[in-house]
Amino acid sequence: MLLPPGITTPALVVDRTRLEHNLRSMADSAAARGIRLRPHAKTHKTAEIGRLQLDMGAAGLTVATIGEAEKFADAGVTDLFIAYPLWPSPPRLARLAGLAERVRLRIGADSAEAAALLAPLSRLVSRPQLLVEVDSGHHRTGVAPGQADGVALAAARAGLDVVGVFTFPGHSYTPGNRERAAADEATALAVASAAVGAAIGAAGMNGGGADGGERSGGSTPTAAVRADPPPTELRPGVYAFNDAQQLGLGVCGGDQIALVAAATVVSRAGPGRFVLDSGSKVLGADSPSWADGFGRLLRWPAARIVGLSEHHATAMLPPGAPGPELGQTVAVIPNHVCAAVNLADELLVTRDGVLVGSWRVMARGMNS
Amino acid sequence: MLLPPGITTPALVVDRTRLEHNLRSMADSAAARGIRLRPHAKTHKTAEIGRLQLDMGAAGLTVATIGEAEKFADAGVTDLFIAYPLWPSPPRLARLAGLAERVRLRIGADSAEAAALLAPLSRLVSRPQLLVEVDSGHHRTGVAPGQADGVALAAARAGLDVVGVFTFPGHSYTPGNRERAAADEATALAVASAAVGAAIGAAGMNGGGADGGERSGGSTPTAAVRADPPPTELRPGVYAFNDAQQLGLGVCGGDQIALVAAATVVSRAGPGRFVLDSGSKVLGADSPSWADGFGRLLRWPAARIVGLSEHHATAMLPPGAPGPELGQTVAVIPNHVCAAVNLADELLVTRDGVLVGSWRVMARGMNS
Repeated sequence: MLLPPGITTPALVVDRTRLEHNLRSMADSAAARGIRLRPHAKTHKTAEIGRLQLDMGAAGLTVATIGEAEKFADAGVTDLFIAYPLWPSPPRLARLAGLAERVRLRIGADSAEAAALLAPLSRLVSRPQLLVEVDSGHHRTGVAPGQADGVALAAARAGLDVVGVFTFPGHSYTPGNRERAAADEATALAVASAAVGAAIGAAGMNGGGADGGERSGGSTPTAAVRADPPPTELRPGVYAFNDAQQLGLGVCGGDQIALVAAATVVSRAGPGRFVLDSGSKVLGADSPSWADGFGRLLRWPAARIVGLSEHHATAMLPPGAPGPELGQTVAVIPNHVCAAVNLADELLVTRDGVLVGSWRVMARGMNS
Repeated sequence: MLLPPGITTPALVVDRTRLEHNLRSMADSAAARGIRLRPHAKTHKTAEIGRLQLDMGAAGLTVATIGEAEKFADAGVTDLFIAYPLWPSPPRLARLAGLAERVRLRIGADSAEAAALLAPLSRLVSRPQLLVEVDSGHHRTGVAPGQADGVALAAARAGLDVVGVFTFPGHSYTPGNRERAAADEATALAVASAAVGAAIGAAGMNGGGADGGERSGGSTPTAAVRADPPPTELRPGVYAFNDAQQLGLGVCGGDQIALVAAATVVSRAGPGRFVLDSGSKVLGADSPSWADGFGRLLRWPAARIVGLSEHHATAMLPPGAPGPELGQTVAVIPNHVCAAVNLADELLVTRDGVLVGSWRVMARGMNS
């Protein structure tokens, strides 16, 4: 992608043509398989991209926090899933109740304790729906698939509508692991869904998926993998922009990178070394163990960002390899685009290298 | 430090008593050695802490970007050093000129090319002063000490007042390296200062330190080390709060940790595992190669944060070790406090575990 001339660095720049292509491809891929798409909005945190995703057929948006949900509700989104095992403290219950009055709200739980504490929400006319989080191999949050019934029963006893199960197959973020992670995800969701359906049915309670219920999965690496049985819903986020991590995993090509950090070469003080003004406060410090650097330079593939401090990205060049000049503006592909976007207040929007506007990262920093 | 009851997590919490103790200790230590203190405000980005530092005798504040300088000038700070080799594009020159009208401004350069481009600033009545950045062993920005004269001459020819040299001894952020880094810093500053003074004097030009000039150094790990010759000015930042990295380096004790992230245990779904709602969007993803985790739990020293995603910190406990309960609020010491603060819009301020106010992170995200 091309950088518009004369912009002040550091800044995040979106190629709108590529963004729309990425959004359309994922929408078409999910539709062709009869799977609902509920993109994760934590990646972009902007009202405009959320609207594009919904206009292309998304069933709703996914968010990670109540604060993100509130921002997207303010922006007019009417169907939101907080795909996170929130701890239902009284202040959180009050905010969830406020949200449930404004949008079709889905929430998650991975413990009977949390599910029981959700009881006050069951008295709402527009009470939220609950999905049980299960662990499909990433070993972060989520109960073992066969134990999803315990959480579901606790939620149903608390008066909530249990509509299904969800997982995040985060072990897909390892080279060569996409197919396995997608298979793990399919199996975990199927096992959990059956357990929940049987338990809720046997107890004669409301919800749960006697019809199978929602099996919500998805990450950008696994979203295009055809697994059996397929999830009923996919929640990828990064696919909107892609990033150096997805390039490294082989999930996207260079022409699908829709966001870069524009940076200036501020120093060439050492041999083979140049330093950019896009540090960790711009790119984010994410660096998977298999990555060889803190991002990629779009036009200088031989360069490696070997060091990252708050306002410096230190890049090294192999002997004899060309590099940018002092003062030159270059494009850096962040390792993890969600982290980079959350550090910015706005995204500059371009088409064919021409600046056409900017989008506010309205849900930046909404962590609670 | 104690967390106030009933706060919504995740949130950053400052212990004001400890903060003031940290600020006072550094101010006293520098004063006792006759060294000026110019704390780096990128760590806290708040007007209130900057004011405390100045009230305790700081000569001015250090910042990393023009945007930070503008925010602190707005807050009434009148003496600022942008300790960074800014690339002097026309928009940056215009902003620097605006700043120079409002504050006593110092800027940095590490190339003759950048220094020459600063010429338009020389025509200002209140023109900024220039310090040459030298590399004392961190190998990021800065020329070799013996080459500082070339940059200084270019700046002097451009009409700027060259008042000294500066360095960041970042190789002090390696266990066991503090003494060596401080010695490297002292030597580099002395060599560079002599080279600059001789060249400027021989050329019969203005500035440069025929009197030795400013030798500005300092990082939190090296600030207390007595090196020979001592710097004339120190620019530590992290010391205000300290963090898990400083603990690991042995630079501070646990009772000097003045900022933590308050987090809630949202999941205990796996054996020996618990998950907090303070992910990389709260703690920052910095993880030095020698650290064993992404932060420390204040009350659970045996726990290790083995995984960090955007909204999850995954902690593991050794077999049989006690851990927090589901729903419990815990305090997490970030690995790198500057990164954590830059992710927050406000800091909650406490005394003796009682919430007494909040400070706005007014320079958050000011990266350009």
